[in-house]
Amino acid sequence: MAVYTEVTDDELNAFIAQYDLGAVLSCKGIAEGVENSNFLLVTERGPYILTLYEKRTRREDLPFFLGLMEHLADKGIACPLPVQGTDGLALRELAGRPAVIVTFLAGMWPRRITPHHCAELGTALARLHLAVADFRMERPNALSLDGWKDLAGKCAPRADEVARDLRATLEAELAALEANWPAGLPSGVIHADLFPDNVFFRGDGLSGLIDFYFACNDFLAYDIAICMNAWCFEVDGSFNATKARMLLTSYQKVRPLSPAEMAALPWLCRGSALRFLLTRLYDWLNHPPGAFVRPKDPLEYLRKLRFHQTVRGLGDYALDDGGSYQV
Amino acid sequence: MAVYTEVTDDELNAFIAQYDLGAVLSCKGIAEGVENSNFLLVTERGPYILTLYEKRTRREDLPFFLGLMEHLADKGIACPLPVQGTDGLALRELAGRPAVIVTFLAGMWPRRITPHHCAELGTALARLHLAVADFRMERPNALSLDGWKDLAGKCAPRADEVARDLRATLEAELAALEANWPAGLPSGVIHADLFPDNVFFRGDGLSGLIDFYFACNDFLAYDIAICMNAWCFEVDGSFNATKARMLLTSYQKVRPLSPAEMAALPWLCRGSALRFLLTRLYDWLNHPPGAFVRPKDPLEYLRKLRFHQTVRGLGDYALDDGGSYQV
Repeated sequence: MAVYTEVTDDELNAFIAQYDLGAVLSCKGIAEGVENSNFLLVTERGPYILTLYEKRTRREDLPFFLGLMEHLADKGIACPLPVQGTDGLALRELAGRPAVIVTFLAGMWPRRITPHHCAELGTALARLHLAVADFRMERPNALSLDGWKDLAGKCAPRADEVARDLRATLEAELAALEANWPAGLPSGVIHADLFPDNVFFRGDGLSGLIDFYFACNDFLAYDIAICMNAWCFEVDGSFNATKARMLLTSYQKVRPLSPAEMAALPWLCRGSALRFLLTRLYDWLNHPPGAFVRPKDPLEYLRKLRFHQTVRGLGDYALDDGGSYQV
Repeated sequence: MAVYTEVTDDELNAFIAQYDLGAVLSCKGIAEGVENSNFLLVTERGPYILTLYEKRTRREDLPFFLGLMEHLADKGIACPLPVQGTDGLALRELAGRPAVIVTFLAGMWPRRITPHHCAELGTALARLHLAVADFRMERPNALSLDGWKDLAGKCAPRADEVARDLRATLEAELAALEANWPAGLPSGVIHADLFPDNVFFRGDGLSGLIDFYFACNDFLAYDIAICMNAWCFEVDGSFNATKARMLLTSYQKVRPLSPAEMAALPWLCRGSALRFLLTRLYDWLNHPPGAFVRPKDPLEYLRKLRFHQTVRGLGDYALDDGGSYQV
């Protein structure tokens, strides 16, 4: 939970006067998300989300993120749409931060993941990947191999405080990934952070995707690997092959994966596990003692990494059962 | 900011099915309040507030609090109204906690207090005090003299960690309050926690009062003393007599204070300052290191207490200037 910046009523009223949204009825900080400050803003026109971008979101990236949401909404992908002021601008300043208002998306994120959720997710992810095909802006993935090396270097001196031999594990895994990271796979804009709390459902149906603030250009299949890690492990650490199969099968009904993409999945899963292990480890080692935000457990992703390290091929995921994920 | 309890989508949907509110569109934890878990719940009927009562709110007190809100709403006081399920009940269980849905109150609490806010507050507080005259339930104030002694005793061994000679200061103040605490003043149900974040405004007008979970029976003028402490000091610690005058003048236009109530204000202000000093001190000394909630500064109320200790009569508040607060 996180609201880093207080917005005064005077500041907010002056801000809202730049939109055609009527008067503010209410503005309450939302106890979710860890990167930015989010408020549920109710105006005479209805509910909206107000986001203030804190220091971990770089200002120069905001046009990419906002442009992406506009592009996706335009393509019929259910996601928040930045609201423009009467001057036609969506991005402005509030309380000394870059700030936008986006449309409100109905739905709740699922707390208990079922295979059905994973099927809906696969469809939505594949549609997202098709919809970005003609999006013209680019943002390199700062959290790929080079970024991991940088984080691992920063964490190395204290990594073993968190788990025995963690420093050596990180170094060995980085070397293995560097030697085996795929090349030439279909690329495009990926969400890159599609955890359950960024996917809304109404009843059984997926109602929208939020939080595009890690979106970047990378292999499309890497987005699937991120979802496999985030959606297909049980709380006890076990890998749920049924969920992974549902994710992949429904994805492929919309966008079939090439044999090279399928073959690359184990390495993409290892890379994705390392990515979240490293960012969580960094936050774990560097969060200020009095911080509001409880850092997420890096060891969850160390366990996932270790699982993927045992995988010698797709068969070990129990995915390859009679080609049910092939369309 | 505090949301202590996670509510799953499945639990929430089952809960909402007991009301005539349509389906849930959204439910987001609110990063405000420190005692209970609050959610902004949007259903097909509109926005509501869902509150889960955590352990600091005693279950046996809930009928008093809910009955009070119903009574006040009935009397035309703008405050949240508990929503009844189709079975006629407002209080039920969710995620193992007592839970209620209350109506949504438009408005924002003022971050920068002006004398005008204090005038609006005085009017609303006096109306509240008139409206409770025929409310028949009672709840003793657990945070009066006896409760202060209990808290001071618990804090005594470590009080001097927080401020030099704080233990002796607390003991001397308790003795002084015990010897001088007024008796026989007009009594009734008071809000007892009417800080700015519990008072909503729309534009210049007060739009409602929230958070009745400290309400109890005590001297009505003690509620004014709580407001004087919470609304009439500047951030630099100085007492703003103009704000206090506005508060009292507008209060008295609705409910004139007796000479005995006026004369008692300095002691009531000292008692109120000690009350918040003690609860904040207790929380300061006892909050778990990893807690989400940043404890409030007890020293703010030590400074207020010291100010009131220098007051020898109403004249020292600069309130008594030509009787402008007398109607």
